Amino acid sequence: MMLEALRKEVWRANKLLPELGLVTFTWGNVSGIDRERGLVCIKPSGVEYDLLTPESMVITDLEGRVVEGDLNPSSDLATHLELYKAFPAVGGITHTHSPWATSWAQAGRDIPAYGTTHGDYFNGAIPCTRPMTPEEIAGAYEKNTGLVITETFKSWDTLDMPAVLVSSHGPFTWGKDPMESVHNSAVLEIVAQMAHNAEQIRQAPSMPSMQAELLKKHFERKHGANAYYGQKK
Amino acid sequence: MMLEALRKEVWRANKLLPELGLVTFTWGNVSGIDRERGLVCIKPSGVEYDLLTPESMVITDLEGRVVEGDLNPSSDLATHLELYKAFPAVGGITHTHSPWATSWAQAGRDIPAYGTTHGDYFNGAIPCTRPMTPEEIAGAYEKNTGLVITETFKSWDTLDMPAVLVSSHGPFTWGKDPMESVHNSAVLEIVAQMAHNAEQIRQAPSMPSMQAELLKKHFERKHGANAYYGQKK
Amino acid sequence: MMLEALRKEVWRANKLLPELGLVTFTWGNVSGIDRERGLVCIKPSGVEYDLLTPESMVITDLEGRVVEGDLNPSSDLATHLELYKAFPAVGGITHTHSPWATSWAQAGRDIPAYGTTHGDYFNGAIPCTRPMTPEEIAGAYEKNTGLVITETFKSWDTLDMPAVLVSSHGPFTWGKDPMESVHNSAVLEIVAQMAHNAEQIRQAPSMPSMQAELLKKHFERKHGANAYYGQKK
Amino acid sequence: MMLEALRKEVWRANKLLPELGLVTFTWGNVSGIDRERGLVCIKPSGVEYDLLTPESMVITDLEGRVVEGDLNPSSDLATHLELYKAFPAVGGITHTHSPWATSWAQAGRDIPAYGTTHGDYFNGAIPCTRPMTPEEIAGAYEKNTGLVITETFKSWDTLDMPAVLVSSHGPFTWGKDPMESVHNSAVLEIVAQMAHNAEQIRQAPSMPSMQAELLKKHFERKHGANAYYGQKK
Repeated sequence: MMLEALRKEVWRANKLLPELGLVTFTWGNVSGIDRERGLVCIKPSGVEYDLLTPESMVITDLEGRVVEGDLNPSSDLATHLELYKAFPAVGGITHTHSPWATSWAQAGRDIPAYGTTHGDYFNGAIPCTRPMTPEEIAGAYEKNTGLVITETFKSWDTLDMPAVLVSSHGPFTWGKDPMESVHNSAVLEIVAQMAHNAEQIRQAPSMPSMQAELLKKHFERKHGANAYYGQKK
Repeated sequence: MMLEALRKEVWRANKLLPELGLVTFTWGNVSGIDRERGLVCIKPSGVEYDLLTPESMVITDLEGRVVEGDLNPSSDLATHLELYKAFPAVGGITHTHSPWATSWAQAGRDIPAYGTTHGDYFNGAIPCTRPMTPEEIAGAYEKNTGLVITETFKSWDTLDMPAVLVSSHGPFTWGKDPMESVHNSAVLEIVAQMAHNAEQIRQAPSMPSMQAELLKKHFERKHGANAYYGQKK
Repeated sequence: MMLEALRKEVWRANKLLPELGLVTFTWGNVSGIDRERGLVCIKPSGVEYDLLTPESMVITDLEGRVVEGDLNPSSDLATHLELYKAFPAVGGITHTHSPWATSWAQAGRDIPAYGTTHGDYFNGAIPCTRPMTPEEIAGAYEKNTGLVITETFKSWDTLDMPAVLVSSHGPFTWGKDPMESVHNSAVLEIVAQMAHNAEQIRQAPSMPSMQAELLKKHFERKHGANAYYGQKK
Repeated sequence: MMLEALRKEVWRANKLLPELGLVTFTWGNVSGIDRERGLVCIKPSGVEYDLLTPESMVITDLEGRVVEGDLNPSSDLATHLELYKAFPAVGGITHTHSPWATSWAQAGRDIPAYGTTHGDYFNGAIPCTRPMTPEEIAGAYEKNTGLVITETFKSWDTLDMPAVLVSSHGPFTWGKDPMESVHNSAVLEIVAQMAHNAEQIRQAPSMPSMQAELLKKHFERKHGANAYYGQKK
């Protein structure tokens, strides 16, 4: 029963990803956890969002063994599991390759806190993990991706900072439930875009303004005493 | 009656925000004022635009006391009120976190007047406020946000410059009525985007043009005497 | 009759502007000319595209006198008229404030020919006019806008270069008929965007590539002999 | 029969181009090959995507002679043919002028591998061809475009690197069938955009963060013990 509700919420949360413009093709996945039973529900691997049904969601235990479902779970499952183990307050996790957050991850930079949109959701700079070692990549890669994230979060309250950038890869976000983790992915994407724009705007050498006469002409022809733009009122 | 009309216009103006692509989730609000009665109508706090009805709008007096409505007013109400008190010509106010205007606010820069699109609406550079002090932030924060705006506008005719950027936060715009304030938010967003692009284009070192032979080849294969692109006419 | 056809084509061409994403609010206009009768058909000033009908289009002579129609013609009419007088091959003209072309106009730069998309339509760099003088702005401003364009085109075959940027203002495009002028506006917008991007990409210092091990890991988990992404085939 | 299936797949693949936002007007084409019969199926030249039908697709042999169809084949046919001859594993080819990939082509740069989205599809940097010589342009231009691509790929397994940028022109992508070649065009566009963004983000001098007090204020008013954003729960 509770598991059915989780299955449905995880399905709905996955369907939101393309609706919010956060994924292309099959590049993203949402999971949720039933903490009492220790069961995780996640999107099946490589299946298009249009074809997803609540029944196609995959249920696994915390060791990644499939408990219910005929399909392979997302190949990122092992990363999700490490986060659920390390972050007890987390109830849902989202992974995407959304373009702006992924661009910051590719640049290997934390996203500094530049404005209140950021502050409304993230209580500091959004951290980017260190690059993984060749050994970590060659070994249990997806599990190690989770470990490099939890290493980054040693000193954080996870609900104070519900996002991370995996270096050269892309973002993971989380929340108290699957829908909140998707919400945080959407916020992260906008915050990433605006942080980049703000840096570009700040560093641009300003150029000469337009001629004062031209500014005045245009303002007055629309708003002045003798305005002639538009129709007679 | 007049109040019912205002309630309806404020509701419609709020619904326009997502239609014009100016808000994400619940990050924006529009208000309007009935100057005769001294009553302000504003969006309720944190409610999704899809769920808004004229009845859900909140009516307050100029001290922020709720006169009609069951929901909390927007948490930015106190900022709107300061602007209505200081700017007698203003009939409607819009606040958003639209990405380009917010990026300029995060960079802490005025938007210079670079072209006639700007001049058609804003009679000079669009000002960015000074950063707020720790005391202003710790105190009556939303009211102080309004005061830092009115401080910035001491020497302006407010309808000559119907927009401001609050440093590290985002834009407020206004107009003679709520719809005009939303219209000005949409214009500001485009003007902010084009000002950034113009600065980038101006500062870019130009690079070598394509080969003259390739330019000629492509123009001629489509428009020349022996054009062979497309179907026989 | 012929005039009715022109009226209908000009109306349809104006309706295309918002469909192609080239205009916001009422910021653009298309006109067409009946060369035999010396009559020009243009959008009325300040009217929303949704409300346009063939009957609302305004017919004027080449001196700008309204011959048919109840509404004011576009405030840019005098610019269109100068172009029709100077460019005998031109049958339709479009003016927009489309963001990328306008950004180049605000930067006061010609758009260099950087690729075959450009070459498929424009036989060289797309010129930007010189800034107008205070006298030209204070005088017959819209007519003088036309004259500064024709001055720029003294040495061009107008159908070889069906676009111009008016400095600090925005683009005008033309063609053998109104629809072709709109088509050229849409092409100009894309060419302007790609020229800017190409300059940015060219000047960017490249950064270190991702780890070779990570590249290989991702390619192989999806395409290698032991791929494990997706479902069993 | 097999040819009918190919015709239908090529038609569907061409229709996908505008749906995925990869083409404007008629600027793109997809082809497929029937290796057994040595026949290629391609979009007709200059025809709008809305008007395409399976029957309007053009069938040619590997020398470009039309075998079935009343329309001219895409003017880029000769490029496709060279690729089919040189790359035996390729079953479908797509050419577009998608903005980000085209911007890299105009800048004349390879796209470095900066992240796992890239690595999921392209096993190294995506190569840009050398500029063509005046003789190559003046001669059999479209065939020579194919030859400059195959020259670039001398040392590649073509399915390890299913994309190329033609200098000053735009991208070609391929796959084991036409649909896969379109899929790779869409991936290339995103990878090109994110590579550019990552370079910009990496090189930007970071600017001071927002005031710590303001960050805290916003986080707390929404998530703190005394949060007052939104409605009472």
